[in-house]
Amino acid sequence: MAITTSSPADLERYALGLAERARAAARALALATTAAKDTWLGVLADRLRRDADGLLAVNRKDIEAAPAFGVTAAETDRLRLDRQRIEAMAAALEQVRALADPVGECLETVQRPSGLTIDKIRVPLGVVFFIYESRPNVTTDAAALCVKSGNAVILRGGKEAAHTNRALGEVIAAALRETRLPGDAVQLVAVPDHAVIDHLLRLDRHIDLAIPRGGEALIRRVTAAARMPVMKHYQGICHVYVHADADPDMARSIVRNAKCQRPGVCNAAESLLVDRAIAARFLPGMIAELRAAGVEVRGCPETARLAHEVVPATEQDFATEYLDLKMSVRVVDDLNQAVEHIARYGSAHTDAIVTQSTDAAREFTRRVDSAAVMVNASTRLHDGGEFGLGAEIGISTDKFHARGPCGLRELTSYKYVVHGSGQVRG
Amino acid sequence: MAITTSSPADLERYALGLAERARAAARALALATTAAKDTWLGVLADRLRRDADGLLAVNRKDIEAAPAFGVTAAETDRLRLDRQRIEAMAAALEQVRALADPVGECLETVQRPSGLTIDKIRVPLGVVFFIYESRPNVTTDAAALCVKSGNAVILRGGKEAAHTNRALGEVIAAALRETRLPGDAVQLVAVPDHAVIDHLLRLDRHIDLAIPRGGEALIRRVTAAARMPVMKHYQGICHVYVHADADPDMARSIVRNAKCQRPGVCNAAESLLVDRAIAARFLPGMIAELRAAGVEVRGCPETARLAHEVVPATEQDFATEYLDLKMSVRVVDDLNQAVEHIARYGSAHTDAIVTQSTDAAREFTRRVDSAAVMVNASTRLHDGGEFGLGAEIGISTDKFHARGPCGLRELTSYKYVVHGSGQVRG
Repeated sequence: MAITTSSPADLERYALGLAERARAAARALALATTAAKDTWLGVLADRLRRDADGLLAVNRKDIEAAPAFGVTAAETDRLRLDRQRIEAMAAALEQVRALADPVGECLETVQRPSGLTIDKIRVPLGVVFFIYESRPNVTTDAAALCVKSGNAVILRGGKEAAHTNRALGEVIAAALRETRLPGDAVQLVAVPDHAVIDHLLRLDRHIDLAIPRGGEALIRRVTAAARMPVMKHYQGICHVYVHADADPDMARSIVRNAKCQRPGVCNAAESLLVDRAIAARFLPGMIAELRAAGVEVRGCPETARLAHEVVPATEQDFATEYLDLKMSVRVVDDLNQAVEHIARYGSAHTDAIVTQSTDAAREFTRRVDSAAVMVNASTRLHDGGEFGLGAEIGISTDKFHARGPCGLRELTSYKYVVHGSGQVRG
Repeated sequence: MAITTSSPADLERYALGLAERARAAARALALATTAAKDTWLGVLADRLRRDADGLLAVNRKDIEAAPAFGVTAAETDRLRLDRQRIEAMAAALEQVRALADPVGECLETVQRPSGLTIDKIRVPLGVVFFIYESRPNVTTDAAALCVKSGNAVILRGGKEAAHTNRALGEVIAAALRETRLPGDAVQLVAVPDHAVIDHLLRLDRHIDLAIPRGGEALIRRVTAAARMPVMKHYQGICHVYVHADADPDMARSIVRNAKCQRPGVCNAAESLLVDRAIAARFLPGMIAELRAAGVEVRGCPETARLAHEVVPATEQDFATEYLDLKMSVRVVDDLNQAVEHIARYGSAHTDAIVTQSTDAAREFTRRVDSAAVMVNASTRLHDGGEFGLGAEIGISTDKFHARGPCGLRELTSYKYVVHGSGQVRG
């Protein structure tokens, strides 16, 4: 850890060493059996439970040092381990163990007139560089998802979790040794210097994918510096659109859930759009209900006319991810205006329509190009677990490679395996 | 074209205008019917044939100006249009028309215990920025593949083809108008200044994918500057490995085809690896045959002992994509050494084994992680057409998103369309 005084050349060598060891480990890990990877997951879960006391003691050092990093009380709470959280981390590993191994799956087989047989086979991406913020469970979750999908991973957690992550790294390494998987399959960046991140982001020869998980500033910095592809999780400016033909009770329940059930996450709703035809009937009760749940409502002029204590919404409100008990509300002419609003202000993450009209649902799902388009369901249901994909390393807001929840399959590529009997090109 | 004296701010505005218009066109094009896109392809093919005289006249201006750009004779030949080449361009459009439209395809449907139905639906990527070098047919091929897959495209061809590309752009625009597809679905960058490319590569809000097609320097420059994902087509350092159990006649035929049939392309073989057990029997005849076909052989010391007129191979030879009638040759101990050699010197493009042993074939295909791994077939068969994928916009050397031949499907993403009956998150 105390290599803060290293020269720039030392840091560059350190980054290159990490990346080269990861590449070598990835080559071996790509050939590891499902049984070997699953055994490792089980051993790691057991070791976490067994080493709980030691982990809690180390975690206290981070908690004590947190104020010096300017960490808020909420962030300190996320950083804190207790027995229940360690048990949850172990259980999450066992859940990944229960998922199907994607590696080696044959995605397609084609027989060509030439006599060639072409199999499209799922393979790991190779080496993943994962840069994240403070919660310790992310360390074990990311290691589990990467290794189960056959990828080596370089983990770079937040400085404020350095002691805890180092201890978790030792437990992970011990489990790799015990199960004879490559020891460099999971490596932690042990140097806090940001220059190491920048060096790693240039090593596209050795690293196949960078995943920044954190605030928008982190993602933008990584995207600008990275030579390899980046899996991005930008903000969710998610909408619920209540269509004229909505069931009002269903609409109220969905809006309340989408806004209030957990307002600080990316698939929580930030904006409510309501058709003019039902606004006078629907909005006063809806807004009273949101206000009773502690939500500050920022509305368009028409919304303000229909309900009490509505803060006038600015243009900026409709483009804001509050991540808080705040909601922007707009009355729209019709489905077309709702779709245009979402295209203009949304972030293509999750958008929902509430309607009993199959025509309106079809038009909305066809025209709204978001990672998930929901009909008569809460935006909060856009989630790897709810979708049945298992644990996720994030929800991609990109359209390239993977979109929406990213689990084991989304951490893979494929190769073509071609069998012939002497075919050449004419 | 003559905006070379524009101010930096003008160029930035010009780039932003291109990107914004492309984004708007992409939204409309994503909803275009297959019939509309296919009609456009047919109309465009007809117009190319009808306007052939005009296109040939314009093309002559580029041919005449070519020496001033320092263009070689071979490059000038690639730049040249004739009636046969225009007919081939039109026929290629009709081939794309015959391919299935990937947009709207349902990739998967999941019924969840919660009652949610989740459809994974193929959608276009959005806006593609395609940067390429001189051959005029690439202009119409790229436009056809992007539009058929529902993507708007911004085309930036080489300066030396400026007149021809502008004329092709006008034909494409006329066909879009005639068939009422968005006129900005295909736009050409009309300003030669490189600053426009750099501006476009920063506009990740409007452009979803950059595809540089050309030399390695171009690809590296685009990758370093781009904020959006880049589909890369790096070099092919392709190997043929002749295993001890190979059929010698088949091996000779495959090596000859892989090296000589078209040496200047990425899936031509650059390196021959031969098992020590058969080297003395196989190599002298093989090398004599290659030399008779005009190939310069650069071999390891053992190769040099077994055959005449072998140039000693340096370390650099094994890491070189000759794209020429040259071949590096190495005698290896066994399959393991062949696989290690390929991992060290190869570019993960296309690698082949020739063997009658199913065990050896299985081991090779499992351990070699290249976009295509061939058993008893020429590396030259790694191609979208040979694989039955139809026309391709390139062969990806990336593992992220698409690998190997990239056709219509590889220019798409997907979205999740979720139908419920009021489900919320508990």
